[in-house]
Amino acid sequence: MTIQELPTADWPDSKAAAVSLTFDVDAEAGWLGEGDEYERRLTILSEGRYGVTRGVPRILDLLRRYDISATFFVPGHTAEHHPAMVASLLDAGHEIGHHGHLHLRSDKVSEQQQIDEIDNGLEALERLGVPRPKGYRSTSWELTPETFALLVERGFLYDSSCMGDDRPYIESWDGREILELPVHWSLDDWPRFGWNIDGGGNVADPEELRRCWTAEFESARAERRHTSFTMHPEVIGRPYRLAQFEQVVAHMAESGDVWFARLDEVAELVAPRLQVAS
Amino acid sequence: MTIQELPTADWPDSKAAAVSLTFDVDAEAGWLGEGDEYERRLTILSEGRYGVTRGVPRILDLLRRYDISATFFVPGHTAEHHPAMVASLLDAGHEIGHHGHLHLRSDKVSEQQQIDEIDNGLEALERLGVPRPKGYRSTSWELTPETFALLVERGFLYDSSCMGDDRPYIESWDGREILELPVHWSLDDWPRFGWNIDGGGNVADPEELRRCWTAEFESARAERRHTSFTMHPEVIGRPYRLAQFEQVVAHMAESGDVWFARLDEVAELVAPRLQVAS
Amino acid sequence: MTIQELPTADWPDSKAAAVSLTFDVDAEAGWLGEGDEYERRLTILSEGRYGVTRGVPRILDLLRRYDISATFFVPGHTAEHHPAMVASLLDAGHEIGHHGHLHLRSDKVSEQQQIDEIDNGLEALERLGVPRPKGYRSTSWELTPETFALLVERGFLYDSSCMGDDRPYIESWDGREILELPVHWSLDDWPRFGWNIDGGGNVADPEELRRCWTAEFESARAERRHTSFTMHPEVIGRPYRLAQFEQVVAHMAESGDVWFARLDEVAELVAPRLQVAS
Amino acid sequence: MTIQELPTADWPDSKAAAVSLTFDVDAEAGWLGEGDEYERRLTILSEGRYGVTRGVPRILDLLRRYDISATFFVPGHTAEHHPAMVASLLDAGHEIGHHGHLHLRSDKVSEQQQIDEIDNGLEALERLGVPRPKGYRSTSWELTPETFALLVERGFLYDSSCMGDDRPYIESWDGREILELPVHWSLDDWPRFGWNIDGGGNVADPEELRRCWTAEFESARAERRHTSFTMHPEVIGRPYRLAQFEQVVAHMAESGDVWFARLDEVAELVAPRLQVAS
Repeated sequence: MTIQELPTADWPDSKAAAVSLTFDVDAEAGWLGEGDEYERRLTILSEGRYGVTRGVPRILDLLRRYDISATFFVPGHTAEHHPAMVASLLDAGHEIGHHGHLHLRSDKVSEQQQIDEIDNGLEALERLGVPRPKGYRSTSWELTPETFALLVERGFLYDSSCMGDDRPYIESWDGREILELPVHWSLDDWPRFGWNIDGGGNVADPEELRRCWTAEFESARAERRHTSFTMHPEVIGRPYRLAQFEQVVAHMAESGDVWFARLDEVAELVAPRLQVAS
Repeated sequence: MTIQELPTADWPDSKAAAVSLTFDVDAEAGWLGEGDEYERRLTILSEGRYGVTRGVPRILDLLRRYDISATFFVPGHTAEHHPAMVASLLDAGHEIGHHGHLHLRSDKVSEQQQIDEIDNGLEALERLGVPRPKGYRSTSWELTPETFALLVERGFLYDSSCMGDDRPYIESWDGREILELPVHWSLDDWPRFGWNIDGGGNVADPEELRRCWTAEFESARAERRHTSFTMHPEVIGRPYRLAQFEQVVAHMAESGDVWFARLDEVAELVAPRLQVAS
Repeated sequence: MTIQELPTADWPDSKAAAVSLTFDVDAEAGWLGEGDEYERRLTILSEGRYGVTRGVPRILDLLRRYDISATFFVPGHTAEHHPAMVASLLDAGHEIGHHGHLHLRSDKVSEQQQIDEIDNGLEALERLGVPRPKGYRSTSWELTPETFALLVERGFLYDSSCMGDDRPYIESWDGREILELPVHWSLDDWPRFGWNIDGGGNVADPEELRRCWTAEFESARAERRHTSFTMHPEVIGRPYRLAQFEQVVAHMAESGDVWFARLDEVAELVAPRLQVAS
Repeated sequence: MTIQELPTADWPDSKAAAVSLTFDVDAEAGWLGEGDEYERRLTILSEGRYGVTRGVPRILDLLRRYDISATFFVPGHTAEHHPAMVASLLDAGHEIGHHGHLHLRSDKVSEQQQIDEIDNGLEALERLGVPRPKGYRSTSWELTPETFALLVERGFLYDSSCMGDDRPYIESWDGREILELPVHWSLDDWPRFGWNIDGGGNVADPEELRRCWTAEFESARAERRHTSFTMHPEVIGRPYRLAQFEQVVAHMAESGDVWFARLDEVAELVAPRLQVAS
């Protein structure tokens, strides 16, 4: 893998920073993909469903109030089981990206299953009238060489699963390239708040998320970078947590220095500058 | 599983929020249910017993001072070994709910053991003169389809084990329905404070619990919701932790906007509105 | 196990609270007891040794400045390998309690090994001229029925391994009784700060320890209780952590309301009141 | 192992404290050394690479602004794959220390592999024109007797892997000795921030790192000690974290009381005082 030199950022309306709010709507698929035993664990399934029932509506309301278009990554299974939620995302003008079908980790399954994850996910979204996704985000941010090659073959405009930079960059493997809109665990709500009875986890103070993400924005602003935040509706959608995240959004909006953009908008803008091979 | 539309909340005395304080009195059963080896681990058993010896009395004192009726979920085994504690709960007018018998996780045992957990728990409480419980809370918040069906068959008015909403709702599975008074890990003291020598855990700052739970109350108040908090007497009963929780209670009481209610009171009020099948 | 009613506390000089500072000097034994592979893990052994080299001297200095007598639990193996450290504890008038020999967890070894842990530990201390210990603290706070019986048979005045109360109480098992000076994980520095490469752990803010332990003292003061804090010299002896703990000590000392006492002093005072069977 | 008495510190220009900033540039090797499966986990590899791409440049900029020479430990594999990064370190006058070749844990591999780690790492650095390293830091701070003996045989001036003191000291094993410039987990960024999908980890508030490390500096200053901090460019190089670390650096610089020194400079100064056998 190599990193090309990145052109100086130049965002619309001369904004100092570009920010994408992204949401992975894993719902039940987030757990079902972990193993068959989850099919009969009703509580953990219901926790995933909370993301659809309560998390997404609260998030849509927040985005509406700040007039922000965001990106939602939706597994095929989630879309099939929650079509009204998918429609609500499209109605509000948000981007729907590809997030696999059964939320299987690419490094844990066969090559054929990896192919199925991509193609079944595409078909599920297509059946619901979702425009063909331009972007892909891998399950648990695991990306194998086989899935990487598939992304290039299927013609995705961008991937959002790697951590090789904190600006848009070109990720490459074995001669193939894709535009990467990178992510990081510390800019994801799960490592701070994800907790379950079998493996534990962290129970962070939401004020820490507010401080850290606000500081990340300030650094992006100072460096004229794009940055993105990753959330899960069942996690950040808890109202007392969302209240802290809203403070981050309010801070960014009040700065007057931010271009809130969907990942596809960012990708369309930067892809020509980075000269991604196609 | 489907979610019905929920009627606008309307609480007694026009209070903005309904709040239930709930306590799972696991005592020794909380550990014995994890495996036979716990029978000879005297320290961990004594930590469970602390909940009965010191936690419950402190909690009863706090509830008395704020004139709050609360809900205690008591496994049959705990009730049998601590009958005076059970009597003290009844004397103070609190609700006793069903919490299994040996604190076995429903997803880890056979269907017959699941039946025994329900029926033996009912019998143990009955022998002690406890009114037949209207509510059930599953061990470790694991709920299988078999136990779900049992709850409906045994006629429980409500369950309090799922996380599919943050308001009372109808949980359904395979054509059966039950009124759900939902919970969440982040509104439980265990994920923040539970620690043991084998698996570790978190050792949170109790001030974080105070801030988060106060914020949860404020969101419930703004949304005119019911919310509930789940505690374990051996965990929250540590005096320096209870002092922080008391600040949450004081804040809610001083708001003048809260209806403190036992879960059965909430269930009786909302069940007709939600039209749970019976 | 049963809990007897406890007499109202009455501390010397009419102090409101009795406080014991206790230190488990595990040193290399703390790791060697976990398995043979630790014999060749030089870094983790050196971390244990730091407790002897740097932790104990810093702690002795702090205790001297506040004129406090404390209790140190020293495994036989640690005493044999660090005799000068043992002498320094005795010279300063501190109590040395029994903490096993090879720091083996009683629930993980045979009954004979449990006997050896007790008797070899006693012999190791005796050979170094340490007065026969009146108190015992179990490794990792695991206490089996066999070791419990041994404590009674060997005539220990008190145990300090259980968590069944937050006041001195009588712990009993199978008809045997011992005076218990209880402990708790949250009043121990290890759960907050213990971290290793294999299993991770927490890296708490020492200011949280300061706030929580100060609050624990204030609750003991309000309830006229005895309380104790458990520390490990290699953990709390890190200077930036000890600085926070010193603030707890300073707060207690300045209150004018505290009787700092070794555990054996507390045991001698309360044993007659609790009428422990002997 | 024995600890010799340490001479009173006496730092250049009568500074009260000596401080070394050290960085382990593990990059991809940090994960590849954990097992073959990491070769196809593109995201985790890209996270390691971020340290080279973004972390090191940000760190070099910070060091330049404060005119600090630092120590970078670079595995042979990292050096081979990122030669321009190595050149940038040398150009800026920083020390490059030995950090193995494939980042294999010495306690997990054969004696021959331990030899290869040392010798292949030396050769890789030599091929890139790096001056022969005077110092060694073990992978994951695991140091076996065999690797310890190798360090002495290969003539390293110092090791920086143990935790037996918080001042430079002589570490010894089986009759061999080496100058140790010690470390500690709590003075390392990984335990606070390292998180991955398989094993979790902590997601600390960077303000806690700022407070704790500032307090560590203040204690070193008061005790006229040397201390060192260990960081990983992919961890501390996240801009919102580096901003907090910069506050630590700024505090130390503004104190006027600090000698910022590379570990080799500290080693050259203290080795004669400690009379390390050679």
